[in-house]
Amino acid sequence: MKIFLDCLPCMLKQVLEASRLVTDKPELQETIMEESIKILSDYKKFHYSPEIVSNMHNVVKQLTGEKDPYRLVKERDISAAKEAYPVLIQFLEQNQNSLYWALKIAATGNIIDSAIYQNLDLQGCIEEELSKEFKICDIQIFKEEITTARKILIIGDNAGETVFDKVLLSTFSHLDITYAVRSEPIINDATFQDAISSGLNEYAQIISTGCNAPGAVLDQCSKEFLDVFHQADIIISKGQGNFEALSECGRSLFFLLKAKCPVIANKLNVDLNDYVFINKSTVCQTS
Amino acid sequence: MKIFLDCLPCMLKQVLEASRLVTDKPELQETIMEESIKILSDYKKFHYSPEIVSNMHNVVKQLTGEKDPYRLVKERDISAAKEAYPVLIQFLEQNQNSLYWALKIAATGNIIDSAIYQNLDLQGCIEEELSKEFKICDIQIFKEEITTARKILIIGDNAGETVFDKVLLSTFSHLDITYAVRSEPIINDATFQDAISSGLNEYAQIISTGCNAPGAVLDQCSKEFLDVFHQADIIISKGQGNFEALSECGRSLFFLLKAKCPVIANKLNVDLNDYVFINKSTVCQTS
Repeated sequence: MKIFLDCLPCMLKQVLEASRLVTDKPELQETIMEESIKILSDYKKFHYSPEIVSNMHNVVKQLTGEKDPYRLVKERDISAAKEAYPVLIQFLEQNQNSLYWALKIAATGNIIDSAIYQNLDLQGCIEEELSKEFKICDIQIFKEEITTARKILIIGDNAGETVFDKVLLSTFSHLDITYAVRSEPIINDATFQDAISSGLNEYAQIISTGCNAPGAVLDQCSKEFLDVFHQADIIISKGQGNFEALSECGRSLFFLLKAKCPVIANKLNVDLNDYVFINKSTVCQTS
Repeated sequence: MKIFLDCLPCMLKQVLEASRLVTDKPELQETIMEESIKILSDYKKFHYSPEIVSNMHNVVKQLTGEKDPYRLVKERDISAAKEAYPVLIQFLEQNQNSLYWALKIAATGNIIDSAIYQNLDLQGCIEEELSKEFKICDIQIFKEEITTARKILIIGDNAGETVFDKVLLSTFSHLDITYAVRSEPIINDATFQDAISSGLNEYAQIISTGCNAPGAVLDQCSKEFLDVFHQADIIISKGQGNFEALSECGRSLFFLLKAKCPVIANKLNVDLNDYVFINKSTVCQTS
């Protein structure tokens, strides 16, 4: 997906948030912003938004010496998600069409960070979000493909959400599952350690994309990941960052996400905050 | 008020909005953003946020040839405010303590742009906002000062809001009233023509600040304005932009505004969206 101008102010706002997680020193926050604005001024040199975000957040890491600015946020989110896990399992058991709702649970995990940040009643918030149906759901295409599939790849998104993904992985237990994470900490995205902490290794082989951007930008991914990517019978790409990086890639895949920003919602032709499970071919028709 | 880092992304978002009001050409929008990012990268050269905003919006004007990008927005807001005017007069008549509520009406005018933009029921929205009391209200200091005052200066903010200000001006009809506006179009701020269209000349002499920033930055104001500024017995500064430019100036004045952003709310030690009528000496104590 091309870089939208709307994303530039948003990136700047996010890097300021990151700087404040790591340092209270105004001078250091100012330097981070100045260096980030320099990167922003070169935005046309990049192909995908996640690349710019990665460069800006590398400034935070380099100037503060903190390799994982969102470490505490991620630990908090994983912990909260684990507490919610029994609710997710119960929700799945109470509903028919378990594949649909397992997908929906995995998509809903995306809200955990903002729900905690806004100090919302987490369990109430999760239950409310879980009950919302997908606005677009290509589950029929998925069901057809999965009947003959052996290998499935899930490209992960945020830490915490990973615990919700575990419910989805459990429904694929007859398949050879690989779960891909970022190569190093970037924003609150899941790394190898976060995936392990979330218990995903019970169901899947966990690998790194080889890319440290908050979206799997293929020409920055490792050969190991690309081999899995090309050999997988089915791929589920989670979250907005992976959608931005992969929406025009060369192979078939499914995007599972909540449209949390107007740019993504517009691209998918849905309303803000709608949930979608969409095949790449459908994206091309809607946008 | 010093420039807060939180304001930088917000400025960039606002200039994108302005560019889209004037042109549909993506290339031109991109060039505006690139030039604006250059200005942003030099943010430390400026003393006040309104100066940066002014420079960024000058890029929009220069590159598009449109001298008043918000002209239609302002006309729409003035027209909507005029339709609401009878409601304001009725509201004032129904409430005791008319000075308090006339001040509150003038502060409430600040919402008209966002209410229309969000497609809210305008009359319902105005009535709801009018009924909210000030979180901080230095009306006692004001009442003491006004008993001996002859000359009052109101430094205006947005177009549309000007119509609400007319209600306030009517309560000062025994005084020599001057109403100051921006020297040229900047965002949706009121200019001379907007003040005339709002009927403010019925009660006040309308002058320009001589400054084209969305806030009266004193060292950019004209001698004519500065004379009025220094000779006025009472000054009411309206809106966030004027607060940013004048919160540390050398003379006593009152700020009348709605805290529409977290930075201003924090500076005033109130909640987001609170209304305040605050003397400058109180600001120094709260921040």
